[in-house]
Amino acid sequence: VRPGTILTDAASVKVAVVAALEARWTTTGPVVGAHPIAGSEASGAEAARGDLFRGRRCIVTPTPTSDRAAVARVAELWAGVGASVEEMTPAVHDEILARVSHLPHVVAYALVGAVGDMVIDGRRTLDYAGTGFRDTTRIAASPVPVWRDILLANVTPVRAALAELRVELDELERLLAAGDAAGLEAVIGRARDVRRRFGTGES
Amino acid sequence: VRPGTILTDAASVKVAVVAALEARWTTTGPVVGAHPIAGSEASGAEAARGDLFRGRRCIVTPTPTSDRAAVARVAELWAGVGASVEEMTPAVHDEILARVSHLPHVVAYALVGAVGDMVIDGRRTLDYAGTGFRDTTRIAASPVPVWRDILLANVTPVRAALAELRVELDELERLLAAGDAAGLEAVIGRARDVRRRFGTGES
Repeated sequence: VRPGTILTDAASVKVAVVAALEARWTTTGPVVGAHPIAGSEASGAEAARGDLFRGRRCIVTPTPTSDRAAVARVAELWAGVGASVEEMTPAVHDEILARVSHLPHVVAYALVGAVGDMVIDGRRTLDYAGTGFRDTTRIAASPVPVWRDILLANVTPVRAALAELRVELDELERLLAAGDAAGLEAVIGRARDVRRRFGTGES
Repeated sequence: VRPGTILTDAASVKVAVVAALEARWTTTGPVVGAHPIAGSEASGAEAARGDLFRGRRCIVTPTPTSDRAAVARVAELWAGVGASVEEMTPAVHDEILARVSHLPHVVAYALVGAVGDMVIDGRRTLDYAGTGFRDTTRIAASPVPVWRDILLANVTPVRAALAELRVELDELERLLAAGDAAGLEAVIGRARDVRRRFGTGES
């Protein structure tokens, strides 16, 4: 490390990480937060793939004190491995990722926790799970310490996202309790439309 | 249709379907409920695959009045396309499927509903979703009238499963609010272990 060395990262949470790095590193050189949105539940060098970042987004999260030349170099690094680079503030990044990444992990943990070891009439429920359950819970296999830390480092947006999810669950529960076929069709129809626009995502 | 013709089905809910069929068909011939646990969010003849049932479970759900010879013939049909056939009562089937299939659909609808059209700082959150969100919500793309009917035809077990999910969400919320790293690690660690035992399920 020489004076002027740029410190960057690839963490899934940016407010806490960038603040901590800026507080401790800036006497040495510039800090630039980054988060490539790519990966799987796998981890470690054996899970490496040369095309992991190609065509994926990488969010770079400068702050008002960021060195613009350093931001440009980090953006260049990510563009160099094929990522589509975009800037936003750490706070906006964390609010968005709480919805599209952190909340789905919480949901997957809850789903596996609820069904997990359940036995009905002497049968392990999980033995009867198909591809739907498998896909819905895949991310629950992610590394535990990583996700413990992500959720705690972004706890306020994650709890807000969880509250938003509960509103939707309450509405579905209400429609089920009422036997409201038309209302249920409207809610799941909207979800289907949004999900289909999002694409099948075979990659 | 001749006298003695066996009526069977492949629906995802068995109590309501088998009761309705037994009430209306048994003057003609025997009724045998069945549910092959295989499929995807796709539907229609164009989504057909010759190996769809190979190595998958098919649940056959006789009742006390079922004709055993007819049950054996239906079991043979499913074994003939490669399924592993198992018998259970319609009620046990519906309780199990509520957990491993119907609940994950409700969760996927809620997740897509919560994140769906959300805009944060002028950005569509869904544009930043990765493979985790994609997998977790894939089943929300399933045919709407089919899932409206499945959920309503199995409403009591589905609501019970939803209540069980809420217990898990409450616990995760409590740990997040308390900043309880050890507790969070224990809960998501258990979910990770269960999910890993379940397998990666690339098929």
